[in-house]
Parts: sequence; structure tokens; C-alpha cells
Amino acid sequence: MDTDYLRRFLSDTSKSRKRNEIRELLKLIAKPDIISLAGGLPSPETFPVDELAEMMPTLLEQHGIAALQYGITEGDIGLREELIRLMIESAVEGESYSYLTTAHILILSGSQQGRVLSGRAFLGKDDVVVCGLPSYLGALGAFSACGARMSGIPLDDEGMRTDLLEQRLVDLRRKGVRPKLLYVVPDFQNPGGVTLSIERRHELLSIAREFDMLVVEDSPYRQLRYVGESMPGLGGLDRDGRVISLYTFSKILAPGLRVGWAVADPEIIAQLNMAKQPVDVCTSCLSQVVIREYIKAGHLPAQIQRIRDLYSVKLKTMLDALDERFDPAWGVRWTRPEGGLFLWVTLPDWMQATDLFQRALEKKMAFVRGQAFHCDGSGHNTLRLNFSYAGVEQIRTAVERLADCIGAMVREAPRESRAAMKERPLELVTGDHALEQFSWNLALSEVVK
Amino acid sequence: MDTDYLRRFLSDTSKSRKRNEIRELLKLIAKPDIISLAGGLPSPETFPVDELAEMMPTLLEQHGIAALQYGITEGDIGLREELIRLMIESAVEGESYSYLTTAHILILSGSQQGRVLSGRAFLGKDDVVVCGLPSYLGALGAFSACGARMSGIPLDDEGMRTDLLEQRLVDLRRKGVRPKLLYVVPDFQNPGGVTLSIERRHELLSIAREFDMLVVEDSPYRQLRYVGESMPGLGGLDRDGRVISLYTFSKILAPGLRVGWAVADPEIIAQLNMAKQPVDVCTSCLSQVVIREYIKAGHLPAQIQRIRDLYSVKLKTMLDALDERFDPAWGVRWTRPEGGLFLWVTLPDWMQATDLFQRALEKKMAFVRGQAFHCDGSGHNTLRLNFSYAGVEQIRTAVERLADCIGAMVREAPRESRAAMKERPLELVTGDHALEQFSWNLALSEVVK
Repeated sequence: MDTDYLRRFLSDTSKSRKRNEIRELLKLIAKPDIISLAGGLPSPETFPVDELAEMMPTLLEQHGIAALQYGITEGDIGLREELIRLMIESAVEGESYSYLTTAHILILSGSQQGRVLSGRAFLGKDDVVVCGLPSYLGALGAFSACGARMSGIPLDDEGMRTDLLEQRLVDLRRKGVRPKLLYVVPDFQNPGGVTLSIERRHELLSIAREFDMLVVEDSPYRQLRYVGESMPGLGGLDRDGRVISLYTFSKILAPGLRVGWAVADPEIIAQLNMAKQPVDVCTSCLSQVVIREYIKAGHLPAQIQRIRDLYSVKLKTMLDALDERFDPAWGVRWTRPEGGLFLWVTLPDWMQATDLFQRALEKKMAFVRGQAFHCDGSGHNTLRLNFSYAGVEQIRTAVERLADCIGAMVREAPRESRAAMKERPLELVTGDHALEQFSWNLALSEVVK
Repeated sequence: MDTDYLRRFLSDTSKSRKRNEIRELLKLIAKPDIISLAGGLPSPETFPVDELAEMMPTLLEQHGIAALQYGITEGDIGLREELIRLMIESAVEGESYSYLTTAHILILSGSQQGRVLSGRAFLGKDDVVVCGLPSYLGALGAFSACGARMSGIPLDDEGMRTDLLEQRLVDLRRKGVRPKLLYVVPDFQNPGGVTLSIERRHELLSIAREFDMLVVEDSPYRQLRYVGESMPGLGGLDRDGRVISLYTFSKILAPGLRVGWAVADPEIIAQLNMAKQPVDVCTSCLSQVVIREYIKAGHLPAQIQRIRDLYSVKLKTMLDALDERFDPAWGVRWTRPEGGLFLWVTLPDWMQATDLFQRALEKKMAFVRGQAFHCDGSGHNTLRLNFSYAGVEQIRTAVERLADCIGAMVREAPRESRAAMKERPLELVTGDHALEQFSWNLALSEVVK
């Protein structure tokens, strides 16, 4: 069936995707000799292959039927109980998790499913979501797919600017717009690498109460802190039951298992659960039982510590390389994350990350353009670097190549073009842009490993 | 957060669900002493626990990284190659699969995802889907969730009535309605238990061509034939590239792995793949690698044969019990499936399956009301019985209890009420009914095991 013929059958969402453009780009970057800092893949050396291999025969003999039969949509009860125990044990001052029951938890097929289900349960056409500028594109895609419009709030080194958040909400209210949902990644934000300060955590919750919004707290990296002390999560501080916290085993155990979990008020969990039933019945029971038994065997804390040790070295390598290779005269800035997987680079305003991307590919190095993470299409001069996947030597080489490209762009650009500034639009935007970017970048991050 | 307060945040889809009614019903039936013929669960004695336990350590040592890392959305290439080999090897006369490449195959997180993605890729508000009357409610739910309207075509012992299908399409065309998609379960239909004859397979494809529709062929039970010879699948007969065939490992290996696959024209697969990317990134890689290695080790044919042997005994037990216990004077009819998991019972027209359901529960026996499978809300006097899950003795006892209930209803009903007939409406219906029924029944089949 040819493409044009098939087009008449496509839904509007499918029509809005630009497949051919993606394919052309993939051809450019799907080369094995490219060092990619683009994806968000964990380092495979962190996977506890031997521990799992050892556990498996006994696990299947004892729990084979639970691992192989259909499970309830809510998820394995034993796994949910282990998660409650873990959350209570690892609670920091100011957090309270002692009220948690299994009804507060929904097992997800990866935390992306939590974003998708939050969208489907709560968002319809023209509902408004407030998010960071930049924000994780998987979330932008999930909310946009429900027809929601996104309103982006700038971040600084302490995370989302709560002063601008409040101002935006007042402005929107004046226009008769009441956002339903606030999306935030408080710890080591993807893509910004910044962490929401404790003051702003309290402010953000108080604003959410005042403007009566649900809060989706996306916490894939919370356990991966390399410097400083953990701050209470929004879910742990929440007294209204308005926070939906999303977690995943992808970054602390193995993404191939495709297991995450949501923690929220039981009424909210019930809604997410009903949205999950018709899409995948239940999450892989084999994966759930493997994780449950892995936690029960007491392996998880050491596993997380191993990952922390490895990634903190990689982060330091990247920061050192940036400090060393990036000429301060270029005017390039970058964040100094305390954890997570990503670091965010802001080029001088006259520079286009798209141009840099082309040059970097020629030098056999890849990153993700920051524009993809901006719901309003801004961020032309930003990019995200991942430091979890590439090896230490590769990170050094990749940063060196990137520096060569930026240096060349600075030397080649006429002085007048460097002076020309671009303005950032800050309006509500519809989902098409985000959706398209989402497909593009997801495909990108899959192939450029 | 209380239910009323949360309601203001719900999307329209969430609002349309009637959670409380479900909860009340679940309380009624979630009792351990009930024999349930309601769900569609495989018998756990068919799960190859020992074979898997033996394979696992080597599998993880050799393929641990592939099993634990993110995979591409399309699915493991090795698994797709094994599936092509299996399809070519098991092709019957009239089928051709030699043209298949990995681009024709998408790995799914269970075949329900194939229904959901077919909906999302191709259906929008008010698009029309033609389906069997009755049809699998997971499909009704998936298509309705996209805003599609369903038009149901009655079945007889040879499956969907292609004469009525053509007539319906002519009628709809006259009204300016052009259905986009035809949904059919050709082998051992769920819930009807009937198989589409070879003549009708050809007719159906020729009608699909004439009226330019895509065909979703749902084949979860194809390999589970207990009597007679396999007929070519619609995908195997298709010459236009308009058939999307959905298969699953849930019934031939283990549903807890949550793996299915779609076979279609590469352009269609590309669309389904793009619809899958943002919802779950990829299917559990652990599950995919386990299945790939299980097939490679040559275990699958014997596994399928074991299932056939077991279920054919259970089917015979159920048919014998029905023949023995159901008084021909009651006017109850049932299908005699040649494979699959379900058998379909039609009560006399004056009888309500809902009333029977209440009585059956009191007698500690459960089934699924047939109305749930009717997109137009008809089927008040029908019900589905599953014969894969319950043991042979349980099947006998459950049928005996069901017979007691029907016998009692016949004795108690006044002659005049028995004569009163109900008419079946056969109009286009919107999705609300199907969605609601879907949630209800999925919850039901999960709990009543």
C-alpha cells in the first residue's frame, strides 16, 4: 500500500506526524562511529545481570504462575507493598509516607505510561497544562496528545520560577483560563539538570492549592543524587492529595523491564487504573515479579549506590571537559546538576543549536536540540547532553568535538550576526509542535545510542 | 481527595465511567468459592515454568543487556525474524507469507495494544467501524475510545454474515457513511466461538476492497484448533495490503509476558509504530528476549500441542455437560467451537441473561453477560462461557449449576412472559455504551477467576 493511498485512512493525529523527515534524519545519524550524548539510556554496565541470573530459576519455581498469568491492572500487591516499605524507609525530614496503602499505588508499564494516563484521565481538548520551559518531551507529547495546550514557565538554577508561575496563573485567570495540571520534575530536571529548591517546593504546592490544580511530579532520577542531600518530594509534602508522583525502575534497575509506579490519592489512582485497563490490561507480570523479588532479596540499595558511583564520575568528567574545552569568551553557559542523567547547555543567543547539530554530526558527535523541550518552540540556542551512557573517554572526546564545532561557529560568524538577538515567544501553544518534536526526538534518541 | 471534588478535574472519558457500579458488582463476585467461566484466562497448568527456569540463567548471561536495556519501538529484530519463520512454516494452502520482512511486523505489549494502536492510527471522532455482533469487548472499547461509532453485523455458525455486511455497507454508503475499518475475529471468535468459512473469508476481503476499508484481523486463538483443519488467515489471503493481523503469546505461551505482534503492510506498521512510541516506548525487552529464545530452542510447537490437548478435553467436557444438563424444551442454543477458549449461549428471547447472572452468582457460578459484546446494546439473552481456566470437574459442576438456574427460571416464568419477544435494535451506536461495558467486564473477568 503506498503512502498516499494510506493517508486517506489516517486519523488526524497520525496525519500530523512527519514521518519522512524523521526517516531522512535517522539515516544521517544512525552510524555506529558517532558518539551520542543524545539519548537518555542508562549505562549497561549498571545492569545486575549476574544477580538476576542467579535469582531466576528459584523465582520461576516459586512464583512462576504469578509471573506468567494475567495480573490485576493495579499491579502485583507484593510489589506495591515493597514500594511502600522503600518509600517509608527512604523518607527524608519533612516527608511523610506512613499513610500509604496499596490503594495509593499503581504499577505502570514504564513511567511514560504515568504521563499518558494522567493526560487521559484528566485532560481534554483545550485544557491547559503548566510546565517548565524546558520540559521533558515525553510529557509534552503525552499531554498534547489529549488536545491540551501547554504554558511554559522558565527555570533558573533553583528550578521552576515560582514567581513567574504565579504571575502566569494570575494572567491566565484574568483571561478566563484555569490550568488543570502542573507538570514538574523537581529533582535534576530533564532536560535542565536543575533541582527545585525547598522554598520553591513549598511555594509551588501553595500555588497549586490557591489555583486548584493537580500536580504531576515526575521523579525518575530522585534516587540518583551525587552531591548534597535529598529534599522532600512534592508527594511527600502534599497535604491535599493533589500530587501524582511518578517513579520508574528504568534508571535505578533496568529500562528493559518497563516498570514504573505512580503514587497518589486512592481516588486519583482509581482513575488512572481505569484509564490503564483498556490500554494494556496489566504491566508485564514477569517484570513485576522479578523486581519484587530483587527488592525483597535486599539488592536494590547496593545497586543504586553502584549507579551513583559510576554516574557521578561521568558527570564530573563532563563538567571538567566543559570547563577545560569551552572558551569563556564564547558566552556558552551550562548547568551543574547534583544528580540525574542530563546537563543543559545554553549557547549565545545568536547561535542556532540546529546548525551546531549539523556540524557535530559531521564530527561524529550527537546531542538533542533544546528546542524539542520547549512547548512554545523557543530554545533555539539550547541543547541537552546526556552523561550516563557514553564511557568516560567518549564523554571527553564528544565534549572536545562539540567545543571544536562551537569554536568554529564563533570564528566564522560575522560580528553583526552575533549581536542580533532573538525574542522568545511565551504564549500558550497547541500540541502539534510538541507532538511532532516528540516523535522526532524519541526516534532520534533510540537510534543515536 | 473526595470523589466529588476530583470530578471537576476529570476528562470527559473518565467522567463517562461508572466506577461505583463496578465496585458494587465486584464485591458481589469476588468470592473464592465461586466457579467462574467468566474470564478468558489460560489454564496455569499450561505455563512452561520448568523450561523457562532452565533457560533463564544462560539467557541472561548471553543476552542480559538486550533484555534489560531500552529496545527499539518496533521490537527485537531477532524475535521478529523468528515470527516470520514460524508464520512461513505454519502457512496453510492458499496463504503466502514468503514476502514478509521485519518491516511487516510490530511487537506489541499484548494484542490489546494492537487494537488500541489501530484505533489511534486510523480512527477519529465519528469514523465508523464495522464489527461482528457480538464482538470482543476489548476491541469495542479500543475503537470507541477514539470516538468511533460501531456498526454490528450478525454472525451465524459460519461467522460474520457477509451478505448482511454488504447490505449494511450499501445502506451506509447511501447515507453518506463510509466505514474505515472492518474488525473481525475469523477463528473461534470471541465471544461467539464460531469460525469464518473459507468462502466468507474471500467474500469479506472482496467486500473490503470494494468499499475500501482496512481490515483488522484479530487472531489470538488461531493456533488453538482442536477439530478440523486450519483455514488461511485474512492476512495470508490479502493481496492489497489492507489487512492488519493481530496475534498474541497470551494464549499459546503466557499472558503475564504481555507480548503480541501485528503483521501488516510496512506503511501501516510504520503508522502503528509511531502511535506506539509515545505510549510505552517499547514492549518489555525481558519478555521479548525470553520468547525469542524459547522459540529458538524449539519449545513452542510442543507447548501449543500440550495446550490443544488440554483445552480440547475441557471443551468436550463442557459440550457433553450442556448436552446432558440442558433440557431441549428450554429452547437454549449454544455454539460448538472447533477451537479457542469460548462458547456462546443463546437463551430463549424472553429470558434476561442479567437475571440469570444474579441467580448463577447465588449458586456460586459466574459467566459474562453477552450484552457487553454487542455494540448496539442488544444480546440481552446471550452469555459467554470460558472453558480454558476452570478444571474439568469444575466445568461439569458450573454447567450443572447454570442448568439449575435456567430450569428454575423456565418453571417460574408465566407462559405469557415467555411468549413476549424483544426486538433487536441494529443502528450505529456511539462509544459510551461499549466503553462502560468494557470497563465493567474487564474488571469482572479479572476478579472472577
